[in-house]
Parts: sequence; C-alpha cells; structure tokens
Amino acid sequence: MAAKKLTMKKILAACLLIAANLTATAQTNSIASSPDEKPADDWKPSSINQSGKQYPQVNSERRVRARLVAPSAQSVQLDIGGKKYPLTKGDDNVWTGFSAPQDEGFHYYQLNIDGAAVPDPGSLYFYGASRWGSGVEIPAHDEDFYALKNVPHGQLREVFFFSKNAGKNLRCFVYTPPGYETESAARYPVLYLQHGGGEDETGWGSQGRTPFIMDNLIADGKSKPFIIVMANSYVPGADFGFGSTNQPAQSEKYSRGIGGPGGRRYNPAAFARVLIEDLIPFVDANFRTLADQPHRAMAGLSMGGMQTRSIAPANLDKFLHIGIFSGGSIATNDVADFGAFKEKMKLVFVSYGSRELGNNRMGGDPKASVEALKTAGVNAQFYVSPDTAHEWQSWRRSLHEFAPLLFKD
Amino acid sequence: MAAKKLTMKKILAACLLIAANLTATAQTNSIASSPDEKPADDWKPSSINQSGKQYPQVNSERRVRARLVAPSAQSVQLDIGGKKYPLTKGDDNVWTGFSAPQDEGFHYYQLNIDGAAVPDPGSLYFYGASRWGSGVEIPAHDEDFYALKNVPHGQLREVFFFSKNAGKNLRCFVYTPPGYETESAARYPVLYLQHGGGEDETGWGSQGRTPFIMDNLIADGKSKPFIIVMANSYVPGADFGFGSTNQPAQSEKYSRGIGGPGGRRYNPAAFARVLIEDLIPFVDANFRTLADQPHRAMAGLSMGGMQTRSIAPANLDKFLHIGIFSGGSIATNDVADFGAFKEKMKLVFVSYGSRELGNNRMGGDPKASVEALKTAGVNAQFYVSPDTAHEWQSWRRSLHEFAPLLFKD
Repeated sequence: MAAKKLTMKKILAACLLIAANLTATAQTNSIASSPDEKPADDWKPSSINQSGKQYPQVNSERRVRARLVAPSAQSVQLDIGGKKYPLTKGDDNVWTGFSAPQDEGFHYYQLNIDGAAVPDPGSLYFYGASRWGSGVEIPAHDEDFYALKNVPHGQLREVFFFSKNAGKNLRCFVYTPPGYETESAARYPVLYLQHGGGEDETGWGSQGRTPFIMDNLIADGKSKPFIIVMANSYVPGADFGFGSTNQPAQSEKYSRGIGGPGGRRYNPAAFARVLIEDLIPFVDANFRTLADQPHRAMAGLSMGGMQTRSIAPANLDKFLHIGIFSGGSIATNDVADFGAFKEKMKLVFVSYGSRELGNNRMGGDPKASVEALKTAGVNAQFYVSPDTAHEWQSWRRSLHEFAPLLFKD
Repeated sequence: MAAKKLTMKKILAACLLIAANLTATAQTNSIASSPDEKPADDWKPSSINQSGKQYPQVNSERRVRARLVAPSAQSVQLDIGGKKYPLTKGDDNVWTGFSAPQDEGFHYYQLNIDGAAVPDPGSLYFYGASRWGSGVEIPAHDEDFYALKNVPHGQLREVFFFSKNAGKNLRCFVYTPPGYETESAARYPVLYLQHGGGEDETGWGSQGRTPFIMDNLIADGKSKPFIIVMANSYVPGADFGFGSTNQPAQSEKYSRGIGGPGGRRYNPAAFARVLIEDLIPFVDANFRTLADQPHRAMAGLSMGGMQTRSIAPANLDKFLHIGIFSGGSIATNDVADFGAFKEKMKLVFVSYGSRELGNNRMGGDPKASVEALKTAGVNAQFYVSPDTAHEWQSWRRSLHEFAPLLFKD
C-alpha cells in the first residue's frame, strides 16, 4: 500500500460519519420558516415526480410542498434530510404542508404517517440512506448542464459481471458515449465512478444525471468522449468469508433495474479487490477500451472519494487521473512514495460543497492540501460548488468540472 | 389498414378494461383464508426486497406477510391486487399480517396506512397500475428459467431516441444478447416487445425478467440471439396536438432509470406512428440489426398484445412474427387481406394465463381463433400458462415459450 496514513479503521469510521450525514444533510438558509408564514404561491410539480403526479411541488423560494390523502391519520410529516415539517388536514381528508427553503438540486425525502416512514406515492424513487425512497428536484440556476437535450445521446447499460472474489455475478452500470455504438472501431478511455455511503450503483446514472451531463459536455466539445463504469462498493459475501471460495452461485434471484438482494456490509479491501481484479479486466475484455494506465481514471463522491484516494495511490500503474468529491483530499505525506505518485498521477481533483467547508469531517483542510500538492509539482485542482452541502448538486457540478479535464492529449 | 375489425374505439375500450384488471387481478385459489387460520411458519424474505430488508416475506403456502412500524396508526392493511388483508398491532408498535395464498410469480401490492395508499418501505419498486409501487415474488416451480445464472449475460440499455412525431426525446430499453458487444461484425434480428396498460418501458426488463430469460435460453441453445426493444406506448404530446409540430423540446427534465415526467394518455395511432416512423428507423441506424421484415418481430402483453394485433397486420412489410400475450387473438376475418397476411406472417403466437380463460374480455375464444388460423394454413400456436391469471408470471412464461420459435432459419 502506497497510501500509508489511511488505515482501514480510519476509512470505516469516516464512512459511518458520511452515511449519518446523508440522512441529515444541513439545510442552512437565510429565508426564515415559521408556522404563520405565507409561502410564494407559484408551486409547480417537481420535475422528478411520477408520470402525471402533481405532488410534491416546489415554489420559487425553493420550498417543497407535499400532499397526501390519509383520511384517518393522526399525524403526517414531510421529512427532508431528517428535518420534519408538519402537514395539516383539510376538510377533504387531504393533508398538505411545506418545508423551509432547500438548496438547489436533488434531495432525498420521505413521509411520516402516524410514525411510519414511507416513500411519497407521488415521487420517483432513488437509492440513498440505505433504502429506496422519494426524491425531489429544486430547480437550479445552472440546471441546463444536466438537462435532457436534443443532442446525441450515449447509453446507460445495466451489466452483470462475474466476480471471482465475490463468487457471484455482480451488477454495474456502464455509460457509453454518443458514437460508441456506431463507430465500431474506436476505443475509449474509462472513468470508474463511485457512489457514496448508503447509496449504490444506480446513483450516478439516476439522481447524478451522469449520462445527461456527459452527453451535453461532449455535444459542446467540452469533454472527450469516454466510458464511465459505476459499480457497487458494498460487495456481497464480503461479510461471510469473502475470498474463501471461488464457487459461482448457480442460481441467484436478482432484480434488474432497481437494486440487489441481500444485506451488504461495506468492506474496503473487498471492493478494492473486486475493482482491480474482477471489474477492470471484465470491462477491458468486454468493451472497446483503451486498456492502460494513461486512459483510466477513478473518482467518487463521499465514501467513493475516500475509496479513490485509498485505491488509486496504491495502484499507480492503473489510474492516470483521480477525482475526490466531498471525500477528503490527499496531503503530500499521505502518500508513501510521493515521487512515484507525482510521476504517474497527472490530475488530482478535489471538490466540496460550499456549505461543507469549515465543517470538514475528513481531517485536514482540503484547499490547503491541494495547494501543497500544487507547490510540490502535482497538477491538483480544487473546486467549490456554490451554496450546496453534502448533496447531489455538489456532485453533479463536480463531475461537470472534472470531466473536461480528463484524457486531454 | 389491413386489420378492418379493430377500430380505435374498440381498442381503447378494451385497454380501459385491461387497466382496470391490472389493479384487481383475480386471486382464485383452493387454500382457504380465515382470520383464525395458522399459516405455515416457514416465512422467507421475498427475493425482490430491498437490500437487507426482511419484509415482506413469503411462506410455502404462497402467502405474503407484511410488517410495518407505525406507532400511532389506527389501521394498516396489505393490499394485493385490490384485495385487502388487515395487519394487527403488537405490543411493540409493529403491525403484521398476511394474505391468502397467491399465484406463483410477481405481484404488485401496496400498504394502506389510515387510508393512505403507499409503497411498502421493504420492497423494491415496479411500475404498474399507473404508479411506482411495491412488488413481491412468490417462488415458482419453474423459476429457474428466469433466474440470474452464471451464464454469458446480455446488456439492458437505457436509450433515448428523438421522435419526430412526439417532437422530443423518448426513452426505450434495448436488450442486446451475449456476444453482441464483442462480436463486432455480427448483425441481429429484433423483437419489439410492449408492456401492458398502466405499465411502461421498464416492465419487461425488470419484473418481466426479459434479460435473464433470454440469457438462459441462449446459453441452453434454445433461442437464437436477438435484440429486444422495449418502448413506452404512452406517447407524450399525443394529447395536445400530436403531430402538429416537429420542433424538438430544447431542454426537458427527465429522470434516467426510473420513469418519465408529465402525464401521458394512450393514443394507439400515435404509438403506431412513433414505432414505425421513429423507433424502428432509429434502432436500425444505431444498432447492428438485420433491418428487414424477415428479421423483425413484434409482441406484447395485454394492451401491448392488442397493439401487436393492430399494428403488425397493417404493416406486413415490417414484421415476420407476432406474439399476443393475454391480449386477444386474431380471427381469420379480422384481417382485410388474409392472403397477404398468410404469405408474410410466419408465426402467430397467442397465449393466456389459465385463470383468464373463460373470463376473456377481448371477444372471441382465443383457442378457437388459433385453430381457425391453423386450419387456414397459418403457423399459429396457442400457449396456456398453468395456474396463473392476468399477471407477470403468465407473460414471463409466454416470452419463454415464444422466443425459441423466432428467427429460425
């Protein structure tokens, strides 16, 4: 291991913090919220509602309004990131209520009906906080960069690969850029892009809007086209004698499109082995990749950023560029052989949401670490997403800033 | 139009019946259910629960047991296909209860908390009955054919295509068979496979288990490898001047992986135009297809079967084989030019769940219609799924029977 200061215990402890943070995202905002206030009456359905559903709604103050028919309920609450807002019952047995202003972008939320925490039947569902639950989208001043536009589109592919380490088929998602399917001789670089704690391999392709972000960047000539592989960090089997058997499961029930079976516990060493020994060889054998270090990058958000800063420095023969989004940074003395790191690693991108700075739980000042890397001669870059916290809008923007820097000849 | 008897009004009326049927699937079964009965105590988590969730559970009598923490609720019910089963509250504020025996296979369900119909927070979610909701899987004697196995896997791709008719980007899913990605010179036949009323383009790839069914058939040498395209029959824009503009939407919010925005109303003529004029040309231009009538088939379930029996006879230059699953059948006098139909259409496959027969709302006896087609010289086949109703287990089995008959040289 080249990364000497990042012990497993430290990583695990930080991951637990991150998972806790995901369920209670800070919502600091200047607009006050009181029971008597009159919200702006310009509510519109959230753009990620189920087809035809009018609620939840969002107004110009970035508040969320929920509605639920629950004739005999005693209490209904809207719960966004752990903060609960009461709904009140009208004469028609319909409960409605609204939240304080939220940050721009995507937020996980749920309803609480007489003490039962359940998804809102009006929203689409997303995996986060270790469960499938509701999501709401607050329009953002820069939402154009992740909108579905009339440009050439890549494909998001659900792919199963056999993991020798896990002893079974695992699922990942693979984004192939526009042109990949028809330009049948071209080969492409690959970015391995990881989700955060309590999330899974669906996150970047769904609430992360990775395909739209990339389609738009490529259409604008701002990014090279490359493949993106999104795997699940929680390796099944890693908690019952991982690596003790190479026998494939003969038949496993698994639901495509929407998650996987069985409990999974995070095991950093298990994921590193699956990535390096199983997934990268599979991708290089089954997609038209440029299968060498100069054409491979790794990045991730939160827990995925911590994986990146642990795995990539320990595998300098594998990755050229890394991105660490809300997941700490790398100090010059984090790396065992800094000379080798500096020679092989051609980009270290570090980012945070502005509301996370000053509340950094990863240890160290990420901006200072990046400056130190620069001083030491590493191409390090630091990005801050304005007015966002430990949440997807920070990570959409981070990918949007990071992708144009990759694989430039 | 070659199909003279299937007017739009008749199709629309039948679709409404089907949509209603989807929300109230018949659960006829011989095992009695009373409040006093003792169910078999061999409960296991449903195989399509969320990762790590222990409920809902299923026992050897094919009952479903639900569990919900709802401290201050007055009433909690388990609702499977419109039939409601009461949950009772224990000393620990936990509500539990169980259903009557269900058919083998997949069932949509929901929980009712004090009058609010919501998804069960324990299950994965599936689109049906015009909403994202819970699903439960009853183990089946033949479940091996749709299990995830250690065989070569195809890919399920989320694809956006620009529809001139709708004036915007639409989403479909495309299954490419094992080998498609690496055998870069091979070209493949295509099956267009449609969902039912109240469902969408995600159904066949998720609860339908199409990728696993095909992977397993191909691995066993029982089916030719072919591409499967799954589109949404509900064309957006078809209810506000469809076809009146060809202007593309400049920017449309859309969530990948999990459904689309805005209300959609079913318009059979609109879907036929999108399929024939937009989707098929897109697929032939963007995938390595064999782009002619002898290598193209269409099938669908329920409303999708009705689409198939309407669209394919009117486009004999486009489709070689058709499959109609729980969606009626074709009588010899349904077709305007029976001679042309008989010459071009090399397979008419009709299927039903056994519990649907005798309760056929499509008009006519499907078995008799198939026999009449055979007598008239058409290669027609009839399949009945044992002990299932108007539900996904019938359609999984129908695809499993239908696929091996396709594109045999």
